[in-house]
Amino acid sequence: MADSIKKSDFVQSLEKGLKVISIFNAQNDELTLTEVAKQVELTRANARRILLTLLHLGYVTSADGKYFRLTPKVLTLGYAYLSSLSFRELAEPFLNELAKTVNESCSLSVLDGHDIVYVARVQTSRIMTISLGLGTRLPAYATSMGRVLLSGLSQEEVEKYASETSFEPFTNYTITDPQAFLERINLVRQRGWALADQELEIGVRSIACPIKDKNGKTIAALNISGHASRVSRDELIEKYLPELRKTVAQIEAALYKR
Amino acid sequence: MADSIKKSDFVQSLEKGLKVISIFNAQNDELTLTEVAKQVELTRANARRILLTLLHLGYVTSADGKYFRLTPKVLTLGYAYLSSLSFRELAEPFLNELAKTVNESCSLSVLDGHDIVYVARVQTSRIMTISLGLGTRLPAYATSMGRVLLSGLSQEEVEKYASETSFEPFTNYTITDPQAFLERINLVRQRGWALADQELEIGVRSIACPIKDKNGKTIAALNISGHASRVSRDELIEKYLPELRKTVAQIEAALYKR
Repeated sequence: MADSIKKSDFVQSLEKGLKVISIFNAQNDELTLTEVAKQVELTRANARRILLTLLHLGYVTSADGKYFRLTPKVLTLGYAYLSSLSFRELAEPFLNELAKTVNESCSLSVLDGHDIVYVARVQTSRIMTISLGLGTRLPAYATSMGRVLLSGLSQEEVEKYASETSFEPFTNYTITDPQAFLERINLVRQRGWALADQELEIGVRSIACPIKDKNGKTIAALNISGHASRVSRDELIEKYLPELRKTVAQIEAALYKR
Repeated sequence: MADSIKKSDFVQSLEKGLKVISIFNAQNDELTLTEVAKQVELTRANARRILLTLLHLGYVTSADGKYFRLTPKVLTLGYAYLSSLSFRELAEPFLNELAKTVNESCSLSVLDGHDIVYVARVQTSRIMTISLGLGTRLPAYATSMGRVLLSGLSQEEVEKYASETSFEPFTNYTITDPQAFLERINLVRQRGWALADQELEIGVRSIACPIKDKNGKTIAALNISGHASRVSRDELIEKYLPELRKTVAQIEAALYKR
């Protein structure tokens, strides 16, 4: 249903409007009408109508009528999702507690297509933190949380994922062979946790566990990540995994009680 | 320009699409086509086209074709704003440090119309934390950050704000008299900080300072908030205000260097 849609059912101006919002970022925090039209592949007239509509609705602003930038109102869209994700709020105090105990960053993520998406994150106040914000997307196969989330899918779904994914060698440690990847997912299923050792970026190690609902369905992944110079593989497993499991048990207990 | 728009320039389906995204929340994490049509005041046919489009674009999902829910992709919209807010990322490590030092929650917010909007927040891991997420909107007049942000506007703009606002008595301490409010803003301007003592909610006290750009324009507010049973007014001023000012100085120094 999501893949095929009748042309008459498709609201193109909605697609274009959402795309306009999405093109703003750190490098492009201010854009002109011409730049918007070019990047979203719109006529100037259409880009103008969309920008004027977003301006009227308060999602963009312009001090001079030339440069447009997003307003905080855009956050209400993401906020609608976050507040609909009821387990997130429930999990957050436990994440804070975990980050304090292990003195490393902890994150909560969910699967969206081929990516994991961060829905909560507690950073420790070190100088060398790993800068990953809410809503950040990372390829599932190269991350500990991604492998935990994929291991919660059916074997058929995981094989579909493996066949559709082009495994990019981010580092020398990245698993790029689909067969090796499938074996790894099997191991994650058996163990109930996943470890990623500098597979996405040199210097970053992490360990993750699934959070499951009453019916045993994986709804999110929780991880602890740290810099490789501070945290060895053995430490992740011997020292941090028990803490991670304790936190998962607390979150699941709170979840089941509702 | 934002207030008046020619009808021919207004893309109504974009407005409706954004409204559909916005109606999902903790109480309504799953909605049927009928519910969406009713809440956004759309015909069933129009609501259906919008939902199908959002489904096709990956912003909503439906397991059974009856109930629709948002997907994490919606976060990318808010994320576009957050990543365009370049001072936020720069400020975050300093916020972490401040929260650790004072062992109370710290937040960063910006003004959007009559509200403040949280763009960063570091919570301490107490049991009794104040639950406020990213993107939360609060009325500016009743909060310390709001008063700091309003004091950065011109006198004319503040008076316009006061005349347009209906001051709601959230608690017995809320300032509800526009004249008293204007005097308070003057005081905040002179002092360079604002204190809110249980004006929005009994039990919550906070103190805030402005963060200014090179030209002296207020771009955000930083606060420390705590439970009234733990933090007295005197403590906020004598103990926390110096720490707050130190952090503001660090953030501004980092900001000016860029």
